[in-house]
Amino acid sequence: MKKYRKGNILLLIMWIFICSLMVCPSANAQTDSRMVRIAKIQVDPAQLEAYNAALKEQMQTAVRLETGVLSYVAVADKKDPSHITILEIYADSVAYRYHITTPHFTKYKTTVQNMVQKLELVDVTMIGNAKKPD
Amino acid sequence: MKKYRKGNILLLIMWIFICSLMVCPSANAQTDSRMVRIAKIQVDPAQLEAYNAALKEQMQTAVRLETGVLSYVAVADKKDPSHITILEIYADSVAYRYHITTPHFTKYKTTVQNMVQKLELVDVTMIGNAKKPD
Repeated sequence: MKKYRKGNILLLIMWIFICSLMVCPSANAQTDSRMVRIAKIQVDPAQLEAYNAALKEQMQTAVRLETGVLSYVAVADKKDPSHITILEIYADSVAYRYHITTPHFTKYKTTVQNMVQKLELVDVTMIGNAKKPD
Repeated sequence: MKKYRKGNILLLIMWIFICSLMVCPSANAQTDSRMVRIAKIQVDPAQLEAYNAALKEQMQTAVRLETGVLSYVAVADKKDPSHITILEIYADSVAYRYHITTPHFTKYKTTVQNMVQKLELVDVTMIGNAKKPD
């Protein structure tokens, strides 16, 4: 009986050790789970002002209300401001899937549905970033 | 004579007032002087690792050493990691022109000259950004 108990304790220790190995790498690799996307949008030039207002409202609300929406940067081509590029960073794909069900995102999509002439979504991975402290 | 002095004082006050009007808007509009650019780069797939290392070194050194280099974000297409997009933000065009004369930028350009197959630079303006606090 004593041998069985020792064996069980040894198994338990091995189990805890294996679990800790499984948990630690996932914690360290947290930044790698980020979902990064570039949205290339062509907007009806006649509705550009209204589109930009709706976009800014969506970006600000999402970052304020959603834990998993990390950042947005939206820029317009100087030569043609109706060509817009947005760099979007979410904590992970679960956060993104939740994001597109939110009332503010639904409101944005409804508002801009007749403003957007073309939309291309490109999934990307982060090579690196560098920035001055805020 | 007294009339002339009063006139001069009045002119001086008006001059100070006009100057303050000219200075204040430029100070408020400081963020608008930022130079924002998207670089679209196609890299020789066989040299991608070396290219990414050189790019990261350049980004980090420039942000650390140059007051006018505000931020870089570099991403790679998931479907083809040799297609790279960099969002670059400089304080203004003077900061950019200084940047391209620095030793670290010259080193980067020399290192990658036979790695870059295509380079497109698109000048853009900031529509807006939103991000979680660091």
